[in-house]
Amino acid sequence: MPEEFADRRLMARAIQLAAKGLYTTEPNPRVGCVLARDGEIVGEGWHVCAGEGHAEVNALAQAGEQARGATAYVTLEPCSHFGKTPPCADALINAGVSRVVAAMQDPNPQVAGQGLARLRAAGIKVDCGLLESDARDLNPGFIKRMQQGLPWVRLKLAMSLDGRTAMASGESQWITGPQARADVQRLRARSGAVISGADSVLLDDSALTVRAAELGLDIELAQAAAARQPLRVLVDGQLRVPLQQRLFREAGPVLVVCTDPQQCAADYLSQQIELLTLPGADGKVDLGALLRELGQRGCNEVLVESGAGLAGAFWRAGLVDELIVYMAPRLLGSRARPLLELPFDEMAEAMDLDVTDMRVIGRDWRITARPVFSFRE
Amino acid sequence: MPEEFADRRLMARAIQLAAKGLYTTEPNPRVGCVLARDGEIVGEGWHVCAGEGHAEVNALAQAGEQARGATAYVTLEPCSHFGKTPPCADALINAGVSRVVAAMQDPNPQVAGQGLARLRAAGIKVDCGLLESDARDLNPGFIKRMQQGLPWVRLKLAMSLDGRTAMASGESQWITGPQARADVQRLRARSGAVISGADSVLLDDSALTVRAAELGLDIELAQAAAARQPLRVLVDGQLRVPLQQRLFREAGPVLVVCTDPQQCAADYLSQQIELLTLPGADGKVDLGALLRELGQRGCNEVLVESGAGLAGAFWRAGLVDELIVYMAPRLLGSRARPLLELPFDEMAEAMDLDVTDMRVIGRDWRITARPVFSFRE
Repeated sequence: MPEEFADRRLMARAIQLAAKGLYTTEPNPRVGCVLARDGEIVGEGWHVCAGEGHAEVNALAQAGEQARGATAYVTLEPCSHFGKTPPCADALINAGVSRVVAAMQDPNPQVAGQGLARLRAAGIKVDCGLLESDARDLNPGFIKRMQQGLPWVRLKLAMSLDGRTAMASGESQWITGPQARADVQRLRARSGAVISGADSVLLDDSALTVRAAELGLDIELAQAAAARQPLRVLVDGQLRVPLQQRLFREAGPVLVVCTDPQQCAADYLSQQIELLTLPGADGKVDLGALLRELGQRGCNEVLVESGAGLAGAFWRAGLVDELIVYMAPRLLGSRARPLLELPFDEMAEAMDLDVTDMRVIGRDWRITARPVFSFRE
Repeated sequence: MPEEFADRRLMARAIQLAAKGLYTTEPNPRVGCVLARDGEIVGEGWHVCAGEGHAEVNALAQAGEQARGATAYVTLEPCSHFGKTPPCADALINAGVSRVVAAMQDPNPQVAGQGLARLRAAGIKVDCGLLESDARDLNPGFIKRMQQGLPWVRLKLAMSLDGRTAMASGESQWITGPQARADVQRLRARSGAVISGADSVLLDDSALTVRAAELGLDIELAQAAAARQPLRVLVDGQLRVPLQQRLFREAGPVLVVCTDPQQCAADYLSQQIELLTLPGADGKVDLGALLRELGQRGCNEVLVESGAGLAGAFWRAGLVDELIVYMAPRLLGSRARPLLELPFDEMAEAMDLDVTDMRVIGRDWRITARPVFSFRE
């Protein structure tokens, strides 16, 4: 077996290991590590959650003495700084690893390359860039936050084949089937924050929580995922949502964002609900400022789950990285509510999308698309 | 090779041959025939167009003396009556074929089984039903017309991902890409009639013709397809479409359907444009009566290409057999026109669809769906 093929196979395994942390590593990245000698795996590890061991340390612990002279395959450049744990580059050096293959550099421009340089300085052979795009797909949010200070924003919508998200009355339960709803639970579970708006919370009395039983994952993983609830963010400019709503009754942190706290701020504070005032130029909540705030709080991935109004506002502001549409094989009719509030008048205003994935989810289809900001034919 | 497998393989070939007549056999069905001895093909034929030889006769001509003792695989029960050509059952008997495998019986309940009975009476071994559903898919329109007197109705729509078919102004050129438009050309080419409405013809000045160069087929097939133009049907209750429109200027038959010919009938007749008066109870054109009329004229498959209004009217009347939606990866916005005019108010009115196919067509997606008339969960 040529070495290149063996390298790819072992890095693919490291990526598979990294993905085990999909629902638990926030605000840290998902990272996997494989230690191998002559193509035989002698240690495997992945990062499970913040404060616990990094992937490299877990793999070294499994390999023990066999790490000496081994090659380490890591999905992200080993860190060279003291955080909650000592630098992984030092751990690899101390264990006597002879070669390190990293899928990608640290996305933080301040430290990128320093871990690899430290390894090289210790006489270790270092390669970087193997299966990089797969490795990047593990951590779209961590990468964007390190580079731009902003989380990766997914806008999730459930629609009928005729592009409608609710009846004119707001009735929307349920457009899609149980498998699609479980998929949304998994999207929530991998996110640092879930954002919704006053209208949809009032209408659906949604809790926006991750519920272990609805994740469609094996029980151990489901419980670990549900143990780390995403921050639930309510965009409620005028503080219209009463504190009796399910959103506030269910356990887990809630952040309410308004334009002016008015007199009722005390009610929120007495219930230990955090209130943030972020007025925008248009008199509504400044959504860009909200995302910067969430980035500062360590949110890598943010899921927007709202009606056409707030969803359209995020889209029009150019803040959406990924559109995830669950399309049900039904027709809700021409009076029903639109997918997004986008008041275009001419074909030239139409926005192109790059569909990156389309697949069957139960009886529904899931379409993943990214905005295209330049014209394309 | 077990006999059953050989039978399936040879019938699959007969179905492939039948499909060569996709664009040319109307009003006849697409039929293919393979003659084989000991699993070796000795003759192949298919029906090309009305008035010319049937599939069986073409295959027998190719096999010559080798037909004696052969097995005939036919996608449709051989006819037992004199039409434009003598009965195929007799031709098979006279050629000394020893076994006939048919994919399906004749769908006309008046004659179903008579051809097979005639073969059996002549001492030929007869099997029926092999790959039947594939054979039925060749001729949805012919089967429906034979059984119900009505054509198979396809409703074609081009929409954005947010379910919009045109801007509010009516601007709609082009939502989808060239490959999707070529696919629509092929849908027209296989149809006996193409139906459109006054609004869309006025707006787009569409000709509704089949254009050889736009079919995306090899040149010989494209020319054969374009040589047989579908009947172009304009639903124009109030005769609003002027005779200067491209629809009337391009070669090929046109039928205008109105509710009251008024004084201008003479203008149409002087230009040899057929005018049909089919007033419905609601003061609009009776679409069910129109389809019955097209069935009587031998249209097997009908393609409805119109705006949301007429498309919605066909859908609401329960006249659509198949919905074909070309979905472009773009957003046209919430002011744009709906997919279908369907004035539903409650989720309980939403109509379920059975998606039978979804595939990439160029940069767009084509979704094929059928209405589900019972509630399904």
